[in-house]
Amino acid sequence: MEFISACVVGAGRVGSAVASRLAERVPTRTTGRQLAVADADLVLLCVPDRAIGEVAAALEPGPWVAHTSGARRLAELDPHVRRFSLHPLQTFTAARGPEQLDGAWAAVSGETQEARSAGFELARLLGLEPFELHDEERPAYHAGAAMASNYLVTIHWAATELFRAAGAPPEALEPLMRRTIENGFELTGPIARGDWETVDRHLAEIRARRPQLEPMYRALADVTATVAAL
Amino acid sequence: MEFISACVVGAGRVGSAVASRLAERVPTRTTGRQLAVADADLVLLCVPDRAIGEVAAALEPGPWVAHTSGARRLAELDPHVRRFSLHPLQTFTAARGPEQLDGAWAAVSGETQEARSAGFELARLLGLEPFELHDEERPAYHAGAAMASNYLVTIHWAATELFRAAGAPPEALEPLMRRTIENGFELTGPIARGDWETVDRHLAEIRARRPQLEPMYRALADVTATVAAL
Repeated sequence: MEFISACVVGAGRVGSAVASRLAERVPTRTTGRQLAVADADLVLLCVPDRAIGEVAAALEPGPWVAHTSGARRLAELDPHVRRFSLHPLQTFTAARGPEQLDGAWAAVSGETQEARSAGFELARLLGLEPFELHDEERPAYHAGAAMASNYLVTIHWAATELFRAAGAPPEALEPLMRRTIENGFELTGPIARGDWETVDRHLAEIRARRPQLEPMYRALADVTATVAAL
Repeated sequence: MEFISACVVGAGRVGSAVASRLAERVPTRTTGRQLAVADADLVLLCVPDRAIGEVAAALEPGPWVAHTSGARRLAELDPHVRRFSLHPLQTFTAARGPEQLDGAWAAVSGETQEARSAGFELARLLGLEPFELHDEERPAYHAGAAMASNYLVTIHWAATELFRAAGAPPEALEPLMRRTIENGFELTGPIARGDWETVDRHLAEIRARRPQLEPMYRALADVTATVAAL
């Protein structure tokens, strides 16, 4: 199968990147509120999670209908039966264009082989590398995705707070974090060395100077001990 | 001032990278247990944190003596007075050579202008970008460094666990995490959108399937709410 035309509903960060990429490759129309989508092969809902059900219900059945939410299930697309979901596993910014899809993966869920094929085809058209995800596994998958991206922001922010407290330049953290990824997430540092004396010293300092960071430091240290023991 | 010769004590990951780099640039000797360092301008201790005091005490005073620990204070180098510390803010692997110093920063502490100058000179000789760190600020600084690198490994491991539970390919996480850094740590995802319903769904799934991750997920969510409100 092949998409001849597509209509992207929603012009947020994901919708904008997806619509720009589709516009390069198939006849595409982007629409906000106006839902004149009857002539499209595919209506792709890039709307806030909470709006998916309402927007889907307002669409005339006929074309493929899909959403790009990581967390929401296919049932949100009722009453449509020609449906799938495709979540681009990437963090999007308004400062970049469709090239931010390149190199990212996409979680595709569908209830039939045809639906999964349609999702895979759309993913490749967008420049994404698709993998199949069972619809009921979306919450666990999305929790992992949020952990990896959102909490990376959080640990960077917390490290920045501690650097500011110490008078160290926060920009020095970035080469360290990049290399941690480039080194295949190899664990180094005090917990890897079994040096809990240093961990206790960190905790005393955090408690004295940035107490709001203590619970996360502690909880992360506990899990890191598991990682160190692997 | 200028170092004419240096002796690196310790051949772990940091010691090996530092010794290889110094060998390219000044006459250098690497030594493990054997401490015949009398003819060096600088003795650089790249030994485990707990060993610094003992090794320093065994050295004949005379040359500059320095350590590369992030957490330990200058007093560990007693009885030497020509001393400084230089912590390369990087995660090192045995799989790479001295090039892993390039682009990283270095925290330099010294009690005199001369000592800080010596530390800055050594940092630049190594290919590091130095910044001054007050000796008493090392624990807060090092807590931030450990947070940024070690806990990045931990969140990746936790996300991998959730991906495995969901049947999603863990390698799909890497482009997401790299882009999160490239996007300047811009927060996206459910907490940025104020979507606590999705967060609750994540928590229910984690509790059911990977309960050991629940405390860290919760603690990180709390701090992320602060980041989202900035």
